[in-house]
Amino acid sequence: MEYNKNFYQIKSNTEIFERLIAERKGIGYYNLPYQDTAEIKDYAKSINKKHIVVLGIGGSSLGARAIYEFLLPSSNYTKDLLFLETIDPLKIKQCLKKVDLKDAQFVVISKSGDTIETISLFKYLNSLVEINSSNCTIVSETKSKLTQFANDNNIKAFDLPENVGGRFSVFSAVGLVPLAMVGVDIDNLLNGCKRVSDSFFEQGAYYKPIIRKARFLVENKSRFNINAVFSYSSTLESFNKWYVQLWAESLGKKNINDTRQALTPVALVGPVDQHSFLQLIMDGVRDKTVTFIKVGDLKDNATIPTDDDDKFTNLGLDYVNGLSFNELLNKQADATIKSVEAQKDIPCDVVTIRTVDEYNIAKLMFSYQLMVSTIGQFLQINTYDQPGVEDGKLILKESLKN
Amino acid sequence: MEYNKNFYQIKSNTEIFERLIAERKGIGYYNLPYQDTAEIKDYAKSINKKHIVVLGIGGSSLGARAIYEFLLPSSNYTKDLLFLETIDPLKIKQCLKKVDLKDAQFVVISKSGDTIETISLFKYLNSLVEINSSNCTIVSETKSKLTQFANDNNIKAFDLPENVGGRFSVFSAVGLVPLAMVGVDIDNLLNGCKRVSDSFFEQGAYYKPIIRKARFLVENKSRFNINAVFSYSSTLESFNKWYVQLWAESLGKKNINDTRQALTPVALVGPVDQHSFLQLIMDGVRDKTVTFIKVGDLKDNATIPTDDDDKFTNLGLDYVNGLSFNELLNKQADATIKSVEAQKDIPCDVVTIRTVDEYNIAKLMFSYQLMVSTIGQFLQINTYDQPGVEDGKLILKESLKN
Repeated sequence: MEYNKNFYQIKSNTEIFERLIAERKGIGYYNLPYQDTAEIKDYAKSINKKHIVVLGIGGSSLGARAIYEFLLPSSNYTKDLLFLETIDPLKIKQCLKKVDLKDAQFVVISKSGDTIETISLFKYLNSLVEINSSNCTIVSETKSKLTQFANDNNIKAFDLPENVGGRFSVFSAVGLVPLAMVGVDIDNLLNGCKRVSDSFFEQGAYYKPIIRKARFLVENKSRFNINAVFSYSSTLESFNKWYVQLWAESLGKKNINDTRQALTPVALVGPVDQHSFLQLIMDGVRDKTVTFIKVGDLKDNATIPTDDDDKFTNLGLDYVNGLSFNELLNKQADATIKSVEAQKDIPCDVVTIRTVDEYNIAKLMFSYQLMVSTIGQFLQINTYDQPGVEDGKLILKESLKN
Repeated sequence: MEYNKNFYQIKSNTEIFERLIAERKGIGYYNLPYQDTAEIKDYAKSINKKHIVVLGIGGSSLGARAIYEFLLPSSNYTKDLLFLETIDPLKIKQCLKKVDLKDAQFVVISKSGDTIETISLFKYLNSLVEINSSNCTIVSETKSKLTQFANDNNIKAFDLPENVGGRFSVFSAVGLVPLAMVGVDIDNLLNGCKRVSDSFFEQGAYYKPIIRKARFLVENKSRFNINAVFSYSSTLESFNKWYVQLWAESLGKKNINDTRQALTPVALVGPVDQHSFLQLIMDGVRDKTVTFIKVGDLKDNATIPTDDDDKFTNLGLDYVNGLSFNELLNKQADATIKSVEAQKDIPCDVVTIRTVDEYNIAKLMFSYQLMVSTIGQFLQINTYDQPGVEDGKLILKESLKN
């Protein structure tokens, strides 16, 4: 007996896994962990500017920013990495205040090469300081007008392969070039990706937690249409934004039967959002799954003092004395996790990142990319396109041309 | 015929309005627009430190931060306002790097006076620089141990009335004290609140857009369980966070019949999220309402240059030349709004803030507070408590005491 494709079937885990293996041949991001980074590293070493300014929006900035802001507070970078990712004039002004334009390298990133926001910023910057081969790097598709512009002006251009989508491009030149420039160990990033990729593709499908979780989310998507990520470190705030883009733009699609699909991402930071969104998770409608992310070792031992002169005793919180903030943060996480788990009817899981380094953030991010690809296969959507954002672009273009 | 209270009824607009008028007598935030600000202004004038550092989390920081970050890029404040709102040690370090501790005023804000995060930070700071009456201000309930601490140490304390909840406290001393210290015109803030409050309470209920919108959201809460706010200015990012707390913590509740209620807030920033979440709105399941927020006049005329030497002509985007970023931003907003409206089955509306000043941001925020109060009445919940966040606090306290 054959089923018509309109009878929507959730495939078996094995079939999904086989589809992912097949997809791996055509979708570029799967192979990024295995690339040769020599050219990027050599080039990055040759850049001696104080400020690295990325011009890029969406997939062209969120990934590098997630990694940089995760690593920054525990690092000793001597260069700044800034992201000009909005055309809001007030934010442009605020961002440029921090930059000595004469001591800055501008990394212009646009997959298509004609992103209105990025090119507008590019033109504007050129009116403040001449942009040429001495202070500019470009990352775009080989065939784009932006790459052509680079070639015409002797500006170094890195290729973003056509089959690597913007929101899956963090481990391509899009992320690696600016990150290498400030001193991030990009090989260690790729090692983290490799660890995840190898263990995913070399083991049997049935046991893979990624596939099991993806299946759960899809089978229960009507009941739990919201997927909250609750990150217990402020250094993961930009990771959260990257997650929202990856999840929303990949999974908000019509599927092969033209049925609308959606898993809506929500991203929270602890403990701040314990004083906010947690109330909704605990007492609200059961329409959310929750994934907690903890960082085991923040490599920081700042400690709440012991209050030897009893200055604060009357405040009645002596039991925090002597605790490191790292411990307190993780105890907060554990307490929140326990309170959510105790509800029984809120699906939740915990991801623990061992420590703050390139290897571990890359593992987290590559896992999330595989998770999204797997969910996409279960939903029978095209995970890698974004047809829904085109209407607005066309309307804008029309209005600007008139 | 009488209905048992278990037959859940959506009340009439008139009845809801009457309930709000009654509520106004007991719930403190309604009356904040009409307070006397002389004491706060006089005190703020006496503080001559370079850095104002707020220690507070959740409702004790989000509101002031929303206002400050909205106004900052177009202002000329000579003092910094910083928010220590997390116990993540990496962020504490990063934040304190920017502060000369000897030239800083610490504003410690905690309604209950025993917020673990805030008091832990307070103790930690005191180990870096002695905190006393010369560099500290406290905002708390009169009866709290923190206020007692202030009195014992001759530290100036401002009262946060018991009937003003944290997430509704931005226009109390919680927001006004730190904002006045950096030079925000707090009277103009209250004028904006008054404008909204007066026009809400002095007109007939039936015509009020707030009540009509609240009713729509509640009547359709099962179909549209997610409420997205799409703000078209990066200066509204912190407003977005404030909105998320206000909405989530107020509206995620069990109602009088013990039925779980939820309207889940999602906050987006344009144009960045056009390259992200917009795809999910356009092609995903119809489970979202969308409210666009535009700022008419950003008071900034940075302009994309005309490219007289044809340097960029080959990039093919000449039609943006000569446009101000302010215009481009609002044209982006309009194009996105048009593309969402064209879907017909996505409920959406547009709020336009006239310009960047105290009066207009206060109008926006006070309106949102009234909207949340109104929705709470329709849902028949207690909008002002947060029982769901207590479990985690108790678990934490137990684990810390052992």
